[in-house]
Amino acid sequence: MSETDKPNGIILGWQRLTTDYPYTYHMFRVRQDQVRWPDGHVGPYAYIQSEGAVWVVPVTADAQVVLIRQFRYTIDDWCWEVPAGGFHDFTGSPIALAKQELAEEVGGTSDDWLHVGSYRPGVSTIDEICHIVLACGVRLDREPQREPSEIIEVHLVPIARALEMARSGEMVDGHSALALLRCEPYLNGKGRH
Amino acid sequence: MSETDKPNGIILGWQRLTTDYPYTYHMFRVRQDQVRWPDGHVGPYAYIQSEGAVWVVPVTADAQVVLIRQFRYTIDDWCWEVPAGGFHDFTGSPIALAKQELAEEVGGTSDDWLHVGSYRPGVSTIDEICHIVLACGVRLDREPQREPSEIIEVHLVPIARALEMARSGEMVDGHSALALLRCEPYLNGKGRH
Repeated sequence: MSETDKPNGIILGWQRLTTDYPYTYHMFRVRQDQVRWPDGHVGPYAYIQSEGAVWVVPVTADAQVVLIRQFRYTIDDWCWEVPAGGFHDFTGSPIALAKQELAEEVGGTSDDWLHVGSYRPGVSTIDEICHIVLACGVRLDREPQREPSEIIEVHLVPIARALEMARSGEMVDGHSALALLRCEPYLNGKGRH
Repeated sequence: MSETDKPNGIILGWQRLTTDYPYTYHMFRVRQDQVRWPDGHVGPYAYIQSEGAVWVVPVTADAQVVLIRQFRYTIDDWCWEVPAGGFHDFTGSPIALAKQELAEEVGGTSDDWLHVGSYRPGVSTIDEICHIVLACGVRLDREPQREPSEIIEVHLVPIARALEMARSGEMVDGHSALALLRCEPYLNGKGRH
């Protein structure tokens, strides 16, 4: 969990008065502060705290993106995604977590990893930091080791098609779409191998 | 809040046993289900429910994107963003909400609106649907009507520069970056006006 308090408890116009954690789950917790707002009134500001996660864009030597189609309980539907995993039970680097998730979710390995960057997934309601990692020359040469909740199909899709799915909204998962579009400068030219 | 239950309470391998709402805030609530998982064990699945939101990409007649720089309590820092707002206290369409937020946050108006599409911001932990709306020919001809919590600067940035900020991660807000990158096909050529 990130610590966002300044030593004096004042955050640009907001003064934090108290902090509670009214709900905790292994993936996130709710933080509820009592705050004096910039206009002087006192009220709550609640948001989600989470350890963050990594999204992996895996590209094979023949310029295919390894996409997954995963069933998601929250929306009761299948989702096009890239492999991903959270830091809630992992303490290594974004690339180390990306390696683990690529192996576990699709049975993939790579010797060519790049930490493309990070982003904030929802600055009004969650404090987590998400990371994007690009893996090139990916081989699907292991057995996936999925968790019981992971219902996953693996699909190989040409780079241009994967980018089109991200840009058009056909890939409804915003994290996966952003990860692909932020990798686009690194992917240009790979489709011509 | 979306209703994700099938009539028989079974969601592809998960069977929902009970539902509670252990925490409610005006921006979101926590839903906690007891679930029989695909492998047969029984345990909780908790996630955030939220009414969703809209992100507006406002472009002026002279090919500038109206960006905002907003101070965010969750991360104790300034964020580059596009104007946005939630459906938690609004019942109209995405374009109607986009019109309201453009006017309130930056004092902007437009006669040229396009609902570019939607996405899911976090399919493992939240059920909300987010929308992207493009506004062209934007004029900054009103006084903004901001809420007490909104500490906002307005900046006009050329289209190519705004897209570069989104793609490079300089724009750390993932929603705003994805909104800009998904609008890119509609923006090509506008910089040559």
